Amino acid sequence: MNLMYRKELEDLVPYKPGKPIEYVMKEFNLTNVIKLASNENPLGCSKKVKDAIQNALDNLHIYPDGNSTDLRSELAKKFNLSPSQVIPSSGSDEMVDILAKVFVNHGDEVIMADLTFPRYIATTKMMGGVPVIVPLKDFTHDIKGMQNAVTEKTKMIWICNPNNPTGTMVPTSEIIELLENVSKDVIVVLDEAYREYVTRDDYMLDSEKLLEKYPNLIILRTFSKAYGIAALRVGYTLASEEIVSNINKVRGPFNVNSLAQVGALAALEDEDFLKESYDLNKLGKEYLYKEFDSMGLKYALSETNHIFVDVKKDAFEVFDALQRKGVIIRPIMSTFIRVSMGTMEENKIFIDALKDVL
Amino acid sequence: MNLMYRKELEDLVPYKPGKPIEYVMKEFNLTNVIKLASNENPLGCSKKVKDAIQNALDNLHIYPDGNSTDLRSELAKKFNLSPSQVIPSSGSDEMVDILAKVFVNHGDEVIMADLTFPRYIATTKMMGGVPVIVPLKDFTHDIKGMQNAVTEKTKMIWICNPNNPTGTMVPTSEIIELLENVSKDVIVVLDEAYREYVTRDDYMLDSEKLLEKYPNLIILRTFSKAYGIAALRVGYTLASEEIVSNINKVRGPFNVNSLAQVGALAALEDEDFLKESYDLNKLGKEYLYKEFDSMGLKYALSETNHIFVDVKKDAFEVFDALQRKGVIIRPIMSTFIRVSMGTMEENKIFIDALKDVL
Repeated sequence: MNLMYRKELEDLVPYKPGKPIEYVMKEFNLTNVIKLASNENPLGCSKKVKDAIQNALDNLHIYPDGNSTDLRSELAKKFNLSPSQVIPSSGSDEMVDILAKVFVNHGDEVIMADLTFPRYIATTKMMGGVPVIVPLKDFTHDIKGMQNAVTEKTKMIWICNPNNPTGTMVPTSEIIELLENVSKDVIVVLDEAYREYVTRDDYMLDSEKLLEKYPNLIILRTFSKAYGIAALRVGYTLASEEIVSNINKVRGPFNVNSLAQVGALAALEDEDFLKESYDLNKLGKEYLYKEFDSMGLKYALSETNHIFVDVKKDAFEVFDALQRKGVIIRPIMSTFIRVSMGTMEENKIFIDALKDVL
Repeated sequence: MNLMYRKELEDLVPYKPGKPIEYVMKEFNLTNVIKLASNENPLGCSKKVKDAIQNALDNLHIYPDGNSTDLRSELAKKFNLSPSQVIPSSGSDEMVDILAKVFVNHGDEVIMADLTFPRYIATTKMMGGVPVIVPLKDFTHDIKGMQNAVTEKTKMIWICNPNNPTGTMVPTSEIIELLENVSKDVIVVLDEAYREYVTRDDYMLDSEKLLEKYPNLIILRTFSKAYGIAALRVGYTLASEEIVSNINKVRGPFNVNSLAQVGALAALEDEDFLKESYDLNKLGKEYLYKEFDSMGLKYALSETNHIFVDVKKDAFEVFDALQRKGVIIRPIMSTFIRVSMGTMEENKIFIDALKDVL
């Protein structure tokens, strides 16, 4: 059965998610495990979300609203767009896959950074596209380099801003310069999963305002990070009406689960929760910077809820050693790990464990 | 921006789901609306599901277990398979899309019936495959006809058994004959979304036993129908370990929402609820048969939770007229509608309204 699968799959490997916390507890016989590996919100989520879900439990037998009508309309209102420019998805993950199916033909070049979110390259390859990798510069997207990589075969440019796993951002002025300089036939995707954590003021929080001038721009956002509902899988995309109507052609008819729609709507109502998450994250970041400094560890300045830090020892060994102490982080490459900001208590446990390990 | 989208999209149209019940109420100023349009379980779902979800609301900020470990292991136990032969998805919908991405190359032929579930043709076209349509015979899959349609370009055969929207089934002996006669390089997919409603005894409820002998067989099942959790989006696929590992290469890393995993696990525990759903459906079916007979309406014998009936008037006009009376059904084509079995009360309301309309 060797020739049965599409040959594009040969080069793909399944995504390896971290082990669920219960499995680590069992495996290492631990009673207390903290997970700072998946950029989850240590505050949980708004109580409004739980209440809303509890009130929706009588309709589990009913298919979701396939058009996510209410959620789309709330998001449109919030961002001053037409509902036809808004499209929720089952996490941004699903949209990364959908966009490949909408745009990427065999042989099309798709420009992306390395390191960045690994699903961009996976979905590009899945569709037979050619990933064109532009290395980060100082752990940051090299926008000029990406612009220089554009050829007549370029279909799409992925920019994770701020970036996962390095936490760095590029100022919106650089994005605008890129949009000004590339052909309108080249799709520019901004994945803004971590936007709610940005502290710098040269980041345009209302990048949706660029959509009118740049119809080739697509903006991805998510409820999985600052809104704290990763379990529910809901993200949303802002783009031109034309792009959204093409997305609708290939997306699953009921792609966003009912409880996810209800939960996201409730999450949108709780600005206080967002503010609290932002504040705690900032506090944690400053604490970790200070501790890393005192330990002589270099790190990239983060505009997200995680820090990319050089632990000066093999990252996978450090991961193992920390895991045995009940602290799960994400080893990235060589001597670099990614650690999510937790509660202040968790941050301290992590630092204590890291000091032990190093 | 005309050449921007993949040309495969030109021929695709967005899926048009029925309007949510609240919208119909508002539009027609109705206080009571019943929906017999989406093959939903009129009993709702097991109370165990709601309890399980309520107990999971403290972890909404945590990503789902990307491997659906517990659900996979329970399903494997239930069907006496290895967990590596089981893969849950976000409804069967997601798996229809994934299978196209795993198997369908540009130009590959994919055999399917007409009428059948519309996502088979949509995802085939999305990947540049060539749908080969074998018309139903007496509203039933023409398995011999499908076998005769196989060429050296055939990659896949879709069989919805029992079939949506006609409700008919083919005996498993015919499926086995097909499997015996086609090359092992041709993937045969059995979509068994409605299996739990089958009343005939020539349907093999344990079709997973065929997997060992036929490694080209893939079985799709769902929690959206008899288990009554369509809102949660969870289905599962049984196949060879090799096929599952290829599915893992293209699926989203967190494709099944946490509450869906928890809900499906709880649903599996409640055999009584399944039995109750089966019994009510059988009762409703017999009642509708009797009423259709007395009205002189022809219908296909159903092994599902819906009936395909010839109302001898334009189906879309009948749909409109019923909707104004607060009864939503699904118009299919010419004079045929599809009606889902509801509670006995709902079935009677439908029949009364239909008599008025015809």
